[in-house]
Amino acid sequence: MIRIVILGAGNVATQLFKVFFRSEKSSVVQVYNRSKARLNFFKEKTSTTNSLEDLAEADIYILALKDDAIAEIALKLAHLKALIVHTSGSVSISALDSCERNGVFYPLQTFSKNKKVDFHEIPICLETNNEKDFLLLKALAESISKKVYAISSEQRKTLHVSAVFVCNFVNHLYAIGAKLCEEHKMSFEMLQPLIMETAKKITELNPIEAQTGPALRQDQQTIESHLSFLKSKKQKEIYELLTHSIQELHGKKL
Amino acid sequence: MIRIVILGAGNVATQLFKVFFRSEKSSVVQVYNRSKARLNFFKEKTSTTNSLEDLAEADIYILALKDDAIAEIALKLAHLKALIVHTSGSVSISALDSCERNGVFYPLQTFSKNKKVDFHEIPICLETNNEKDFLLLKALAESISKKVYAISSEQRKTLHVSAVFVCNFVNHLYAIGAKLCEEHKMSFEMLQPLIMETAKKITELNPIEAQTGPALRQDQQTIESHLSFLKSKKQKEIYELLTHSIQELHGKKL
Repeated sequence: MIRIVILGAGNVATQLFKVFFRSEKSSVVQVYNRSKARLNFFKEKTSTTNSLEDLAEADIYILALKDDAIAEIALKLAHLKALIVHTSGSVSISALDSCERNGVFYPLQTFSKNKKVDFHEIPICLETNNEKDFLLLKALAESISKKVYAISSEQRKTLHVSAVFVCNFVNHLYAIGAKLCEEHKMSFEMLQPLIMETAKKITELNPIEAQTGPALRQDQQTIESHLSFLKSKKQKEIYELLTHSIQELHGKKL
Repeated sequence: MIRIVILGAGNVATQLFKVFFRSEKSSVVQVYNRSKARLNFFKEKTSTTNSLEDLAEADIYILALKDDAIAEIALKLAHLKALIVHTSGSVSISALDSCERNGVFYPLQTFSKNKKVDFHEIPICLETNNEKDFLLLKALAESISKKVYAISSEQRKTLHVSAVFVCNFVNHLYAIGAKLCEEHKMSFEMLQPLIMETAKKITELNPIEAQTGPALRQDQQTIESHLSFLKSKKQKEIYELLTHSIQELHGKKL
């Protein structure tokens, strides 16, 4: 049984808590958070604290914190002999240099508190400074996911930047679609089969082959009619920039 | 049995041919295309022609053509007494005014020739000028899909512009993610669970609630590190514009 303390109470911390709490191979012995109020969700299920001085003993301390808080909290954990890991896509392992044994446990997924996720298919990217710690972290990762990878901080950065494009920015384009539908009293649900198919399609075709639409077809008449349909300046800018970028990538004249 | 002639040999024409060819309620009596070479795929299965003068008799003529060819071809079909429809998201029904009976049969989906699609879940947006033609077109649409809607040209425009955002532009963001992975020798497949979850998530949460990432968190350090990671000018521009747009939508200061 791997004993874990989770530090943080945000989306990632909450989802990790839920999956480790259910797992038979690990035990969440404590959740730490600076603000007491956000510990309410956890306190019926495990021990909680808002003081770093009261941390329980554990095998792994998981820092599921805001990126800029990681190094700061790590400094305060320098006395611990256990493995200290963070869960960030963009912070280097070296942010934990103040701790003797450190590593990264990065689940490559988008987490919201109220959306259940199935960890089995989520790639878990691990990094440590020695083999023994890697095996411990791997045992923990494999207890929740089938997809566990050794990924360096540099490789992780590529994944994280790509994830911003294919997840965060994609979701924002969904938000624009939803807003346009709402403004024109259309049901956004009508677009969901298209959204799912667009995501599924690239498991069979690469995204270059999968591209369709007026930008690719150089259909200037439609592009102009869409631009005059859009009222928001930002939406127009996004439409123009992405249209140009598609045409540039596909080697057509602009 | 509804007799159909399909005009065109592109992605939409090919997919419509496949689904109507299999259906027991319709018969594709002919495929027309200006270029003979592109008729090869169809000619073993049905009659084909590259001459508008040799069109076979049918109940419905489906113009699955480039947007700017629709009105031009419709002019040449003005003598026909059958129902003439186009399949475009962005062309008004009035482009077919030269034909006595006209309408729109717009499948709201992304079609590539070599990617099989399941029509059952695809919303089919119909428009006609009279009830009788609507019932005929509806019978055809319901023979392949469970989701058939009466949608005006104006409503269709909203759906089409939204579709460009949630499908064509989204796919381009996938292409950027794939390119970054390729350049840095990472497997793009690792991002596929994230891509699927991002698409699925908005069936439970609205896209505003589903938003995550550095832009939303106002994580300036990560944003700057991502911008300096990106080498392409277009990618940097897209990153900056979408980051600002997320922050604007979520009412944070820029």
